Amino acid sequence: MIYLDYAAATPLSEKAKKAMLPYFDEKFFNPSAAYLPANEVRKEYEKAKGDIAHVIGAKAADLVMTSGATEANSLVFAAIPNDAEVLISTIEHPSILENAKQKQYRTIAVDKNGRIDLDDFRKKLTPNTQLVSVCFASSELGTIQPLSDIARIIQEERTRRAFAGEVTPLYFHSDASQGLGLAEIKVARLGVDLLTINAAKVYGPKGIGALYVGRSVRLKPQSYGGGQEMGLRSGTENVPATIAFATAILDAEKHLGGERKRLAELRNKFKRQLEKQIDGIEFLSKDKVQLPNFLPVTILGLDAERLIFALEDKGVYLSTGAACAASKGEKSPTLKAIGLNDEQIAGSLRITLGRPTTEEDVVAAVKAIAEVVSAERKRLADS
Amino acid sequence: MIYLDYAAATPLSEKAKKAMLPYFDEKFFNPSAAYLPANEVRKEYEKAKGDIAHVIGAKAADLVMTSGATEANSLVFAAIPNDAEVLISTIEHPSILENAKQKQYRTIAVDKNGRIDLDDFRKKLTPNTQLVSVCFASSELGTIQPLSDIARIIQEERTRRAFAGEVTPLYFHSDASQGLGLAEIKVARLGVDLLTINAAKVYGPKGIGALYVGRSVRLKPQSYGGGQEMGLRSGTENVPATIAFATAILDAEKHLGGERKRLAELRNKFKRQLEKQIDGIEFLSKDKVQLPNFLPVTILGLDAERLIFALEDKGVYLSTGAACAASKGEKSPTLKAIGLNDEQIAGSLRITLGRPTTEEDVVAAVKAIAEVVSAERKRLADS
Repeated sequence: MIYLDYAAATPLSEKAKKAMLPYFDEKFFNPSAAYLPANEVRKEYEKAKGDIAHVIGAKAADLVMTSGATEANSLVFAAIPNDAEVLISTIEHPSILENAKQKQYRTIAVDKNGRIDLDDFRKKLTPNTQLVSVCFASSELGTIQPLSDIARIIQEERTRRAFAGEVTPLYFHSDASQGLGLAEIKVARLGVDLLTINAAKVYGPKGIGALYVGRSVRLKPQSYGGGQEMGLRSGTENVPATIAFATAILDAEKHLGGERKRLAELRNKFKRQLEKQIDGIEFLSKDKVQLPNFLPVTILGLDAERLIFALEDKGVYLSTGAACAASKGEKSPTLKAIGLNDEQIAGSLRITLGRPTTEEDVVAAVKAIAEVVSAERKRLADS
Repeated sequence: MIYLDYAAATPLSEKAKKAMLPYFDEKFFNPSAAYLPANEVRKEYEKAKGDIAHVIGAKAADLVMTSGATEANSLVFAAIPNDAEVLISTIEHPSILENAKQKQYRTIAVDKNGRIDLDDFRKKLTPNTQLVSVCFASSELGTIQPLSDIARIIQEERTRRAFAGEVTPLYFHSDASQGLGLAEIKVARLGVDLLTINAAKVYGPKGIGALYVGRSVRLKPQSYGGGQEMGLRSGTENVPATIAFATAILDAEKHLGGERKRLAELRNKFKRQLEKQIDGIEFLSKDKVQLPNFLPVTILGLDAERLIFALEDKGVYLSTGAACAASKGEKSPTLKAIGLNDEQIAGSLRITLGRPTTEEDVVAAVKAIAEVVSAERKRLADS
């Protein structure tokens, strides 16, 4: 089996699994209980939160733990009145787009590599904009966004509002689900007020994520109860998953430099081989602004879904567009936004590499893709 | 160590842990992905949902998986307009009470055992009531509520509204976090439209729960995105936790009869021994309407917090009131609602037994409690 869909899901790392296991039985205590073993669990939970926060340049008190990225994103949008203006990029994940649809939203154009058009952003930012939400990196293209440039424009608008005596708040949010563990992500450097992170894409477990909440931000709880997470997200803490998330993210941080280099080299090799062996293949976005493990391509004249099923027979697993949208048969808004035509969209595959990916995998995957493409072209020519 | 706080948290069962583990690494696929191994994970996830649903007499399509009971309860209240009338009992868990506070709410009185006063309920139910939320069993007393009687009164009101041409909806919700795995809980028999269940109290993992949603109920999503859980709760499914939940709940269902009997006998023995060895001990609620593992008591003239710390030194862990409220030093609304005075509330302990509790544990715990009570009384007499 050659799995090439690490943007959709990563396996839990051995280290994270090992760290988590005792918290299911030996240390299963409710962190809110009064006795000593429960207090210890509380401390370990808080330490884990501190570790996670540290990786993004924040403190435990800045994080609200959630059940994943979608909940974190939804918590951000819940803070914004329904009649407030919201700006998102044209290439956001459904968990941003569908939340934006609950508000008055507009989309910011991107260039052919999927990067935000800053002029378009300036034009669309109005005195009524209360939230700007732009992903750290696109989940379909891996394109990294110029967040600190966006932050600068937002800061200008805030200054203008302050001088004009306008009190409308303006928050800058980024979903960094794609990118965590593959790039330097520090909230201060990016200039964001709110940042979504997610364990399930960084070799942590499913069902745990977090929202970084800057000091100036006022959120509205979506769940009420015991008052956990500073009252912003009640419910017994998911201790095992948080411990595993911390272990996974610290481990990713530790190996970031080397792994980024290794993945980029592997990806570039993959690219060169595909280019050599397959006619009519186009590469989406470009290396310079892309996460190192992303290799989105389009193969002209072919249907990506057919290719995927044929590759499955050869034990190669990859995806068309985002996994979330893929299962619903909709055309990817991201691929439309970067100007692809219907033929290009129909033939688009998202290849994403991961920690377990080896050079042998790349060689075997290229061979399998080339065979499948050639068989499919033959079938089409014959019919 | 003798742990007697199973109402606060249960350890994950070996069986559930074993069932869950492969889904962290071997079968880590995103269930929305298109390739075969992901489809298999999707099927196993749906089967697990079906198993969970079956235990409460429902189908997979009736369940919205959540990150726990608090999220499930909050999803119920989010469906109710803020200006709508809501009725809850006076002894609800904070995750109901705090949600109710966001609406126009009134509380239904309970008797000295903590059972809903049906006459008071009839009086408070108005043509504007849109939600009635009463727990299956109190998390502090273990008192089981007469849900089917409440359902009958609600049905009468619905019939009245229908004849009067009134269109205001009226939903009946119950949080069955306490009780699942310890009592027969079938949605049709109870007559509820909405039912909250939670893995963490039934030897499943933390971070997973579910909301049963009857066919007539219209909910409002709290998170938007990939459209998972019939669009009511977007976000990648927490597959491992759901698999573990199903395993845990099926196992509890299988042993329900025997375990219920065993726990009741153990609890009654505990009670008799405490009665014999400790003067001025009072038992809250009464066996007949109580979950079999609950033994809430009050020891007159003493401070429960001091007792708990002294018991901790002897390796006996239990709680005052609900763990969630306990850590905030508030007086329990439940104990006030059943008419306890300040002295009784100050001396109240919640003892809850669980699957690992043995007769030896009971004997040793009684001995420890008696020693601690007697030492504390001596200290008070001397001072």
